[in-house]
Amino acid sequence: MIDFTGLHEIVGSTSSKILMLVADGLGGLPHPETRRSELETANIPNLDRLAQHSACGLTTPVLPGIAPGSGPGHLALFGYDPVKYLIGRGILEALGIGVDVQKGEVAVRGNFCTVDGQNAITDRRAGRITSEEAIPLCKALDQIKVPGIEISVYPVQDYRFALVLRGPGVSDQISETDPGRLGLPPLPCREFSAVGAGTAAAVNTFISEARKVLQESFPANMLVLRGFSVLPNLPDMGVNYCLKPAAIAAYPMYRGLASLVGMEVLPSGPTFEDELDTLKNNFDRHDFFYLHYKPADAAGEDGDFDAKVRALETLDTYIPELMKLKPDVFMIAGDHATPAVIANHTWHPVPFLINSRWTEGEGVDEFHEKSCATGALGRLSAVHIMLLALAHADKLTKFGP
Amino acid sequence: MIDFTGLHEIVGSTSSKILMLVADGLGGLPHPETRRSELETANIPNLDRLAQHSACGLTTPVLPGIAPGSGPGHLALFGYDPVKYLIGRGILEALGIGVDVQKGEVAVRGNFCTVDGQNAITDRRAGRITSEEAIPLCKALDQIKVPGIEISVYPVQDYRFALVLRGPGVSDQISETDPGRLGLPPLPCREFSAVGAGTAAAVNTFISEARKVLQESFPANMLVLRGFSVLPNLPDMGVNYCLKPAAIAAYPMYRGLASLVGMEVLPSGPTFEDELDTLKNNFDRHDFFYLHYKPADAAGEDGDFDAKVRALETLDTYIPELMKLKPDVFMIAGDHATPAVIANHTWHPVPFLINSRWTEGEGVDEFHEKSCATGALGRLSAVHIMLLALAHADKLTKFGP
Repeated sequence: MIDFTGLHEIVGSTSSKILMLVADGLGGLPHPETRRSELETANIPNLDRLAQHSACGLTTPVLPGIAPGSGPGHLALFGYDPVKYLIGRGILEALGIGVDVQKGEVAVRGNFCTVDGQNAITDRRAGRITSEEAIPLCKALDQIKVPGIEISVYPVQDYRFALVLRGPGVSDQISETDPGRLGLPPLPCREFSAVGAGTAAAVNTFISEARKVLQESFPANMLVLRGFSVLPNLPDMGVNYCLKPAAIAAYPMYRGLASLVGMEVLPSGPTFEDELDTLKNNFDRHDFFYLHYKPADAAGEDGDFDAKVRALETLDTYIPELMKLKPDVFMIAGDHATPAVIANHTWHPVPFLINSRWTEGEGVDEFHEKSCATGALGRLSAVHIMLLALAHADKLTKFGP
Repeated sequence: MIDFTGLHEIVGSTSSKILMLVADGLGGLPHPETRRSELETANIPNLDRLAQHSACGLTTPVLPGIAPGSGPGHLALFGYDPVKYLIGRGILEALGIGVDVQKGEVAVRGNFCTVDGQNAITDRRAGRITSEEAIPLCKALDQIKVPGIEISVYPVQDYRFALVLRGPGVSDQISETDPGRLGLPPLPCREFSAVGAGTAAAVNTFISEARKVLQESFPANMLVLRGFSVLPNLPDMGVNYCLKPAAIAAYPMYRGLASLVGMEVLPSGPTFEDELDTLKNNFDRHDFFYLHYKPADAAGEDGDFDAKVRALETLDTYIPELMKLKPDVFMIAGDHATPAVIANHTWHPVPFLINSRWTEGEGVDEFHEKSCATGALGRLSAVHIMLLALAHADKLTKFGP
């Protein structure tokens, strides 16, 4: 949790409600021609107006220079030191699709890939096959029997799947099979220490059976595995903050992250409008809501500056609806920047605002990177925004005499 | 101490003098009508002029969102991590009135309160009786004899007193008797573990005797006890910084804090003018001075915006006198914000300035929250200002080869 051992002495439950809207990949960088970032370019009157009545700043997701994955980026926003609390890729993928992973089980992420006649990888995503194409392949892989270990295969999305190893003595102390670039064959799985030997052997047996199962299903004629991992031991967010937290996210990975920290994951349809319906229908039942908005990140990862601008403008149109719910504390944060000019998660600080009855008079004119840099909050570590939220929600008393 | 173990290798004594003026509750928030904070509203030409020749910034007392009590707020300014070094309420109260608390003794804060015929508390501060009314009651309580333990009662101020337990095996591992709200009777004292059993029994004996002593002294017809505590183990400020530090503070609690970190507490009268006389008369005898100014916090806690503005304007009039002493380093800091609109200590960052021969050209136009946010120091943790002071006083050499 937050590295603040005094928290439990000063935090208490109240009726006030906190809404944390996470705009995935919110932060950006200036377009080389206009020298204006995606947020500066977008027409976002509602976000601008909100910023004028909020305390604004820039969050550092992990540390300067560190571009976080979705796991660390979100854990920080929830108040967990992302360097201390690590989540394996496999666990995140499995939890994200609702697989019931238990203590002592190992999860790993799989990709279908394409290999040539020499077993060299020619496409690490098997031509990005669709979920419809991948599901029957996953079912076939799921039929493979390996002595002494139960291996289950779950389709995730497109070319991605999750694989869960169950049985006595299964270990995550084994190596990945993805060589990380084209032209090389998938690597054999190796144990890091003796404790992983049996699991590594079982994984290799599974892979050679899988090769036979997939041999006729070009371009998905092989698979690679990354991120063997077990459940992390994360403190419960509700207990530590005296909150009854809920998560609303259309994408599986974010639901998985929220469940790991103990949030109740509310069922929701696949669009942000579905998420909003879920929020409205459950607003009375919880005092903390994590609401996830994905499109800005997706456009940024595609390197599509204009699409990211449009995704932010679309987000802007939902702000009045969110404010109508009258949360006592309304935060807009990003788990990381995804500048279209870099087309990837980056290390840049991310615009942040917190709105409460205590922020009147602290605003900035517009909501973007440059204005937030001059805001009342300045730069802050993302891991501290939950403390700010609790303070603004009047859920904290004075620390120390 | 400051979390910088390399300090002892680079710090040395010089003839330069550091003056740290702590304006208690310095930071504020905008008035809802004018959208200007207390500092922005106040006419403070001397502070503004000083800010123009100083390096300015905003200090975070503990962490974002954490509103510190006076103890943690001051410890941070003195360079002690306030999360690591905790001070009990009772110790702070006892030291503040000059009680000679020794290792192994237990101090606790007492309030006179009012109870009704059913022993339910109807006023937790006994109508805020005056010191004149309280002193004879404290004397009467001090006469109570409890077998095996010596219990001394010292008046502090108004309805507050300190109680010190002395004797073999006294323990602070016992519970408070203040139920924290009206309508409930005072709680019995309980031991947290076996080590506290004897002390808890003695305290309960004392309380039942006290009830008899106080029964005719309505509204102060009962007492509650909070914050059983022993002396903390704080490194010596003088040793660690190679300083000969002195404290000048009219209010008892701040004198107590200073003595805990090893400062010499200089005798002073009750007004800030008395404090200034003490400073002038002792300026040759020390190389570090902590000077405490209380009125801004008091007005903020009362929720009186205009009174806080006036308190800051009064402080401003003393600045020329302080500068006439020509300290080599002059800092103006706050232990926390006390915005009148919240009428309490809060978590907000606090304006800070440091003036030395090295700060010329680094200034901002005015001394307030928004200008300091744009200052040369940016945001800094309050725990680091002592390092800055030592550097500006030319008391630090280069760290590392």
